[in-house]
Amino acid sequence: MKQKEAKVYQHGTLGMLVPGLFNGTLSVAELLEHGDHGIGTASGLDGEMILLAGTPYLVQSTGRVRILEQSEKVPFATVHFAQKKDTFEGEALDKKAFEQAVLAKYPYKNLFFAVTATGRFKQVKTRAVAKQEPPYPPLTAVAAAQTVFEKQNVTGTLLGYYAPGLFDGMAVAGYHLHFLDDAKSFGGHVLDFELASGKISVEPFATVEQHFPLQDESFLAEQIESASLHAQLKQAEG
Amino acid sequence: MKQKEAKVYQHGTLGMLVPGLFNGTLSVAELLEHGDHGIGTASGLDGEMILLAGTPYLVQSTGRVRILEQSEKVPFATVHFAQKKDTFEGEALDKKAFEQAVLAKYPYKNLFFAVTATGRFKQVKTRAVAKQEPPYPPLTAVAAAQTVFEKQNVTGTLLGYYAPGLFDGMAVAGYHLHFLDDAKSFGGHVLDFELASGKISVEPFATVEQHFPLQDESFLAEQIESASLHAQLKQAEG
Repeated sequence: MKQKEAKVYQHGTLGMLVPGLFNGTLSVAELLEHGDHGIGTASGLDGEMILLAGTPYLVQSTGRVRILEQSEKVPFATVHFAQKKDTFEGEALDKKAFEQAVLAKYPYKNLFFAVTATGRFKQVKTRAVAKQEPPYPPLTAVAAAQTVFEKQNVTGTLLGYYAPGLFDGMAVAGYHLHFLDDAKSFGGHVLDFELASGKISVEPFATVEQHFPLQDESFLAEQIESASLHAQLKQAEG
Repeated sequence: MKQKEAKVYQHGTLGMLVPGLFNGTLSVAELLEHGDHGIGTASGLDGEMILLAGTPYLVQSTGRVRILEQSEKVPFATVHFAQKKDTFEGEALDKKAFEQAVLAKYPYKNLFFAVTATGRFKQVKTRAVAKQEPPYPPLTAVAAAQTVFEKQNVTGTLLGYYAPGLFDGMAVAGYHLHFLDDAKSFGGHVLDFELASGKISVEPFATVEQHFPLQDESFLAEQIESASLHAQLKQAEG
């Protein structure tokens, strides 16, 4: 019998956010049909989403953490069903060392994979973007208005994805990590961290399923510029 | 009840071919589980594949057209199950006019879609790449060694895909078209054509399923350069 290959599902593309396509186009209920772990954002770019064991937490720019309703819609999210994974212990790893350690341990640089770290962090620095109202500005303007949070000695979960450079624009090339502390009171899009000690798990995907908002007229009509896209993403995603 | 959304499946990426990853990594039998129409190539880059109603034809650089065995493996192919599609009549359309006519008629520029044209062609110009032996050269070297074919007044099927610019490298950005005549004796990767009169059908996809050769060691080990990739693809795919 053939082993079922692991799959990651993405709704929307990072590239769509660049010109300001922030309207939610897929309900949380539909998204959760494709995964129980993941990351994303909410309609209007209302913060940073992290999906843990089926619960979609939203870290807003005010610092508030709330659970998304099943009926709320997201413009962009990446999810997968967590399966049995390779796990190893990590200690005293800053962001760069962490990212290098994973790719040194696994030959996955040309694949999409999920990475999770649970444990104690010496420090975590995050950001959350602020909710926008239509007409939406471009992503670069939103990133300039983000709130930055920082916390020392915190236990929690770091969760995200790695995408090969070839897929820059569809996804964040390299690592794209979100965080939520165990108290569910602090988190966001990860800018920096140092893992004191924790369990790191990695899951490679044979398939990435990219889903588009086929019925969304503003998406269909938008002029998505490939030429300047990569520079704008670099500025916005830092 | 929710309508089943259309999906396109791709094994391998165009970007993988650039450094010379030409080994077949998915059997034709497995590929056909994901579609009955499509395009691709064969192991060693042995020509241009076109899948019509479940039959995978391979146009080789010698001009020979043969049917791929179920056990043969492909490094790169894109397939879908043809469903009920929008169809319109086209007349006196050269390549550029054809490509523009489809995008003028349908708001699909930010989506993946399949396009088919069956009918009478005033002329069709194709190319087929020549089979390579390991160690494989880069794609640019192979494209330089291609055979070009040309035929006037031919009936047949033009089939291929459109991919948004954002996905350049994963797929061919814009249109990627193959051709096979009704006599199954002439075809290949389409360089130019003029449709005299025929039926054009278009099918947009909500989902693109990108599948990787997860077990292929040479794929995992390869350094796939994103920086020079687009320029090399432009040279090779022209």
